[in-house]
Amino acid sequence: MAKQIRNIAIVGTGVIGASWAALFLARGFNVTATDPGPNAEANLRRFIDAAWKDLTVIGLSPNASRDHLRFTLDMKEALSDADFVQENGPERQDFKIKLYADMDDVTPQDSIIASSSSGLTMSVMQSACKYPERCVIGHPFNPPHVVPLVEVVAGEKTSPHTVEEAISFYASIGKKPIHVRKEVVGHVANRLQAALYREIVYLIEQGVLDVADSDTAVCWGPGLRWGVMGPNLLFHLGGGQGGMQHFLGQFTGPLAAWWKDLGKITEFSPEVKQTLLEGVLKEAGNRSIEELERERDSMLLELLATRTKDEKAAQEAIASAAR
Amino acid sequence: MAKQIRNIAIVGTGVIGASWAALFLARGFNVTATDPGPNAEANLRRFIDAAWKDLTVIGLSPNASRDHLRFTLDMKEALSDADFVQENGPERQDFKIKLYADMDDVTPQDSIIASSSSGLTMSVMQSACKYPERCVIGHPFNPPHVVPLVEVVAGEKTSPHTVEEAISFYASIGKKPIHVRKEVVGHVANRLQAALYREIVYLIEQGVLDVADSDTAVCWGPGLRWGVMGPNLLFHLGGGQGGMQHFLGQFTGPLAAWWKDLGKITEFSPEVKQTLLEGVLKEAGNRSIEELERERDSMLLELLATRTKDEKAAQEAIASAAR
Repeated sequence: MAKQIRNIAIVGTGVIGASWAALFLARGFNVTATDPGPNAEANLRRFIDAAWKDLTVIGLSPNASRDHLRFTLDMKEALSDADFVQENGPERQDFKIKLYADMDDVTPQDSIIASSSSGLTMSVMQSACKYPERCVIGHPFNPPHVVPLVEVVAGEKTSPHTVEEAISFYASIGKKPIHVRKEVVGHVANRLQAALYREIVYLIEQGVLDVADSDTAVCWGPGLRWGVMGPNLLFHLGGGQGGMQHFLGQFTGPLAAWWKDLGKITEFSPEVKQTLLEGVLKEAGNRSIEELERERDSMLLELLATRTKDEKAAQEAIASAAR
Repeated sequence: MAKQIRNIAIVGTGVIGASWAALFLARGFNVTATDPGPNAEANLRRFIDAAWKDLTVIGLSPNASRDHLRFTLDMKEALSDADFVQENGPERQDFKIKLYADMDDVTPQDSIIASSSSGLTMSVMQSACKYPERCVIGHPFNPPHVVPLVEVVAGEKTSPHTVEEAISFYASIGKKPIHVRKEVVGHVANRLQAALYREIVYLIEQGVLDVADSDTAVCWGPGLRWGVMGPNLLFHLGGGQGGMQHFLGQFTGPLAAWWKDLGKITEFSPEVKQTLLEGVLKEAGNRSIEELERERDSMLLELLATRTKDEKAAQEAIASAAR
């Protein structure tokens, strides 16, 4: 049986923790946040106020309120009544092992402790816990209050039940959790970003493309499609009436030929860093960071609205067909 | 001086050629199409009628009309008054060299001949032309009447003037042309797709992910962002107030570490093909190819409308600041 989740604790209120806090408030939960840093509470409240605009556009759940935020410097107080913990501490191994042992001591035994860590594995972090089976990675894609993806990864001692519960909890609040079935460096989304960016950096380094054209190549080309559907399903459609079967018969040859020719770089040379920097500044032109952020976020919110509306329509069509 | 373009010839009216024809008609040009295949004209007109709905949503130019389409089996007749030729013939080297020599003979000397080829280089195709300087790759991302990207690539004998003219022509009709400065296998967008998909196939093969989760990882994660902005500019924003400079200082270390760990596969194993096929069919569920296409295209058109509106707003802001 799933534990009913009402109270969520946020441990660490940097950019990621603050964004999670905003999201959980917008989904109607009681949130208790803790962070020992200077001005942590003021920074957290400022972040949430700024994020609330976007969350209002995305849609607030019944009972959503910024008044349901409590802040405390006492971690024990934050965790002792938590039904779910989202941890966002610094990415240092020794620190995290100690932090997990401490959190484990004061969090109710049947509550999940989820980590936003991208750089460490849960097998390592949970190693000094008494109840390691309820510790799991729940790695968001930044910023968590906007981008739906969450990567759920078990450590060696995590129970399958915890993985299921974490996935079903995240899904219940509108996130899109995936189950990463093995602990790999960078989880998944960061690896996918790295794979794409490696070829971009390689082509820029080879003088095939300038920086702005490489951005155009993505965001006015295949990126438009990746904004609406995943690569496998797109290839299923790329196969025409024959679908994926036809695609796999016809197009794996060219794909494998391109794989053989892809760049193999494993470092950023000082020269390419300079080229990337100059190229990006030229591409940005006189648009400030704030202006570009507004551009990105307003388009992202409209895209999310489109995607959500379409998903709902598809679900309703399925439900109505089943009637 | 740029040649005024009024009459466009389409050589080869398969899926790509037909989509180009529809786009050029929607942008108000006279289009003459030629293709020796059986039922080519009927198939072309059927394709254009279907595409016209999407083009109407995207927006028709003044003078746009399907009545401005002419079809002929006589290539000479199609090309003799063409101001611009878009070629979409079969991807066989000997065939294309001969085709380019033939087109070159009958197309006005000051008209550009652009090729949609993805598999051959212009250096090869133009090798038997008298006027090879006006031959250039103009490779679309499918379908050209919807997705804006065009990759412009010169052959050894292509003049810089032709590259400039092709880029400015494509840009003038709302496409997003990029200049690919060296002839590389697969041009650029196909390589970027291949780089991303290689890591996906690798992770699926390793049992890290199932197929549906790998699609979620893209289209509800980084893909959402790639639908609105290119990776370099996104990393500029990922650097916070310090922008790209900060990003390059802080995040190239982790990126390079992921690069070293990425999958190195260069073939699709029979086992992974089977996994991909079963996974896609499961993900598609009871949604038919047609339903999925409608899903993809309706979201794509909404995303394009958002992007175009936002681009216009940004341009107006710049213009108004300059006043």
